[in-house]
Amino acid sequence: MSAFENLMGFARDTAALGQVAGRLGWDQETMMPRGAADQRSEEMAAMEKMLHARRTDPKVGEWLAAIDPATLDEVGQAQVREISRAFDRASKVPADLAVEIAKVTSRAQGQWAQARADEDVAAFLPVLEQVVALKRREGEALAAGGNVYDAMVDDYEQNMTGAELAAMFDTMRPRLVALREAALAAEAPQKLSGHFDADKQMQLTEKLALAFGYDLNHGRIDKAVHPFSSGSGHDVRITTRTSDHDPFNCFYSTIHEVGHACYEQNVDDAYLLTPIGGGVSMGVHESQSRIYENQLGRSAAFSGWVYGQMRDVFGDFGIASAEEFYRTVNRVNDGYIRTEADEVQYNLHVMLRFDLERALMLGDLSVNDLEAAWNDRFKADFGYVVDKPSNGCLQDVHWSVGLFGYFPTYSLGNVYAGCLHQALRQAVPDLDAQLAAGDTAAATGWLKESLQRHGGLYAPRDVVRRASGMEPSAEPLLEYLEAKFKGIYGL
Amino acid sequence: MSAFENLMGFARDTAALGQVAGRLGWDQETMMPRGAADQRSEEMAAMEKMLHARRTDPKVGEWLAAIDPATLDEVGQAQVREISRAFDRASKVPADLAVEIAKVTSRAQGQWAQARADEDVAAFLPVLEQVVALKRREGEALAAGGNVYDAMVDDYEQNMTGAELAAMFDTMRPRLVALREAALAAEAPQKLSGHFDADKQMQLTEKLALAFGYDLNHGRIDKAVHPFSSGSGHDVRITTRTSDHDPFNCFYSTIHEVGHACYEQNVDDAYLLTPIGGGVSMGVHESQSRIYENQLGRSAAFSGWVYGQMRDVFGDFGIASAEEFYRTVNRVNDGYIRTEADEVQYNLHVMLRFDLERALMLGDLSVNDLEAAWNDRFKADFGYVVDKPSNGCLQDVHWSVGLFGYFPTYSLGNVYAGCLHQALRQAVPDLDAQLAAGDTAAATGWLKESLQRHGGLYAPRDVVRRASGMEPSAEPLLEYLEAKFKGIYGL
Repeated sequence: MSAFENLMGFARDTAALGQVAGRLGWDQETMMPRGAADQRSEEMAAMEKMLHARRTDPKVGEWLAAIDPATLDEVGQAQVREISRAFDRASKVPADLAVEIAKVTSRAQGQWAQARADEDVAAFLPVLEQVVALKRREGEALAAGGNVYDAMVDDYEQNMTGAELAAMFDTMRPRLVALREAALAAEAPQKLSGHFDADKQMQLTEKLALAFGYDLNHGRIDKAVHPFSSGSGHDVRITTRTSDHDPFNCFYSTIHEVGHACYEQNVDDAYLLTPIGGGVSMGVHESQSRIYENQLGRSAAFSGWVYGQMRDVFGDFGIASAEEFYRTVNRVNDGYIRTEADEVQYNLHVMLRFDLERALMLGDLSVNDLEAAWNDRFKADFGYVVDKPSNGCLQDVHWSVGLFGYFPTYSLGNVYAGCLHQALRQAVPDLDAQLAAGDTAAATGWLKESLQRHGGLYAPRDVVRRASGMEPSAEPLLEYLEAKFKGIYGL
Repeated sequence: MSAFENLMGFARDTAALGQVAGRLGWDQETMMPRGAADQRSEEMAAMEKMLHARRTDPKVGEWLAAIDPATLDEVGQAQVREISRAFDRASKVPADLAVEIAKVTSRAQGQWAQARADEDVAAFLPVLEQVVALKRREGEALAAGGNVYDAMVDDYEQNMTGAELAAMFDTMRPRLVALREAALAAEAPQKLSGHFDADKQMQLTEKLALAFGYDLNHGRIDKAVHPFSSGSGHDVRITTRTSDHDPFNCFYSTIHEVGHACYEQNVDDAYLLTPIGGGVSMGVHESQSRIYENQLGRSAAFSGWVYGQMRDVFGDFGIASAEEFYRTVNRVNDGYIRTEADEVQYNLHVMLRFDLERALMLGDLSVNDLEAAWNDRFKADFGYVVDKPSNGCLQDVHWSVGLFGYFPTYSLGNVYAGCLHQALRQAVPDLDAQLAAGDTAAATGWLKESLQRHGGLYAPRDVVRRASGMEPSAEPLLEYLEAKFKGIYGL
């Protein structure tokens, strides 16, 4: 066998084992008996240790060294690129540092949860200080003299840099702040109220998932505390949750997760269980979940269909027309929490975190100054004061578990979704007529054909450029948001 | 770190990874989307390949060679014994033979299922011929000049031999044949009839599981096509099934699986995720499932309590008294199928398979003569003729997947259960009064304390000898069966 064949055989097994670890994560959130938590964490640790050993196996380095990519076709080159990336990254981080990070972040996550419950920032800072120091050491090892934060972003979004993100976000921030202020000063749409049966929510949520092309023969829907999508290829599972007074949370988190899941289900079968057999990056992944959820799911056309479905299931629930329902679905609310934010404000939450975490990683902000910096920035962008830490710098789990460089991919996904949506509207001129009938086939088919099926074949920005036919920028997203919310709020 | 510490660290991870593979098997039978089957088989194959590589890792051999067991305590010696056993067995089988067996048995299982559906023995024989030839080669590699069949039995029941089993079964067969004939000649108990709601069966089955001490904080109950127990330690899950007309199938298969599951849940926490952290052998495992199901679950005392529970849940279901219910639960029926057999006939089914598979492995029976040999033996022991292959030599999956040496452990489990039951009755004189109130705590507590908590600390026969205080033999089982069924049938 050639070095390439050996490498691919090994990589396929590693991909399969990675899927197993993912399934274990799914089980933990959905099926695992409560008392199994400690045992499970040992099982997960053994899986991670084994996977890390495979990713850094010296054999992989030898095979890579023996391969001339020029002799391979496009797919082979992409496989080698992905394997090489993972090998280089894993090999650059000293084993004892990786172990130390795993230990400290495991502890930090527990302390974060406790500090958040106690509204006690000071109790969390010492361990966050350790996490930041360890992650900076990791970043230095990865950057090898380059920019520490860029090295971290690269883990989630290949070839993206902090400076590029900052430039992109700088064009977005003032326009979003202005749009937010204008919307909140105008007359607000009606709020949803009433009681919505949980079983009926689950029935309708399945119907919505199917309407977006989610394949239940290769997936399943369960309830969990936090909605998520898990797995690749022929086994991609999603979770959702119900709230008696907030069925939108169930429906739109389902559509969001279906976007992630369809991306994974729709990758070309030829790449199944290989390094390019899943979504290519966090940003591109988020572009799919967001375009399903927002540009399609919260459009006037599709929300009109949802209104009819909800009337069928729940009867009259106090909203008199599809037009008013559309405004309610897109209502801009005061609030502190990123995960509950509407389309206008969501990116402001992300940019705040991006600037702070970048400064932390580059040594421009100390952990002790984090809370003040958060609260100042929040006041500046949102116009009111953070009332308690759980609504401020303690609201997200990310930093406690060492996820630095991850936050900006949320907004990058929105930016990519803006580009894709503009191209989709040109490719499918009668899209609204279809969406109004609950038919997403043309839209999701276009996304599958233009982007999803490629998996990791092309680098993130390349696949968005190919699919949208434009150089990715924030402009399409901003134009879409301004047009949409000026319409809704009569600005 | 010492060689022993290194070995144990590696073995703990291997045990944890083995648990993950088991959980994947559970998922496959309960939760997996239908369309994920092909991908799953690749994932399972990658897990098995990785686990096999760990079991035969040369490092394990080096550590074992560097350890002097005399320097270890009893627990350490047991750990080394188990690791050494697995290492020796896995190392003796050439890798290409192991791969060939995996491939052929995977194909053979599909062909068996098709042949059984078609009632076509001839269609199954060519692949069975291959399986038998490959397993004999494996047995020769394992036996290294010794008895091929003994080497196979040893995989499931350490230190047991075909000759010892044959001697044991020879004492059982004539007495069971005689008991069977007498029972079937006597007046039969009433049969259960009627319709039993599936949801209510599941409610009562959970109550029964809890009554036998199954810990739902470390387990869960789901439906599956075939009932099974899966996992060790703090995550031991069982499955059951419902049939509208046969609630006993649900209730007694649950109690059976609870016996297996409690054995795994009750192993000393100090052995969690180590080579001795689970049940010690198939035979001892089956002794637990059988004593829960039969000696306890089908006793007059406990079945009286079940009768009351069923009346509460289902109302009047046509059986007038607890006494008649006890006779119904233990009814000896004509039939062909091992898994549906009562206590009297079950071991006759097993012995038939034991004699045939032993002859196949020792070269005393050819695959082409298997069906005739089966049918002759069945006629001799059961008194009537096999009507079709799915009721005869095609009924069990075992041989198609290469399980030779496994069948006798079912009856060995019954024999062990007989010994344990005799000792339990002496240890808990008022057992029937407790069982009549649905209280199994004294019985299951005694089993936990005497046997289950030890996990793999003692060899199979040793732990039964210690717990029962006697040299294991078939006599207690035979005396129990004869007394019980002579009572039920007024013989």
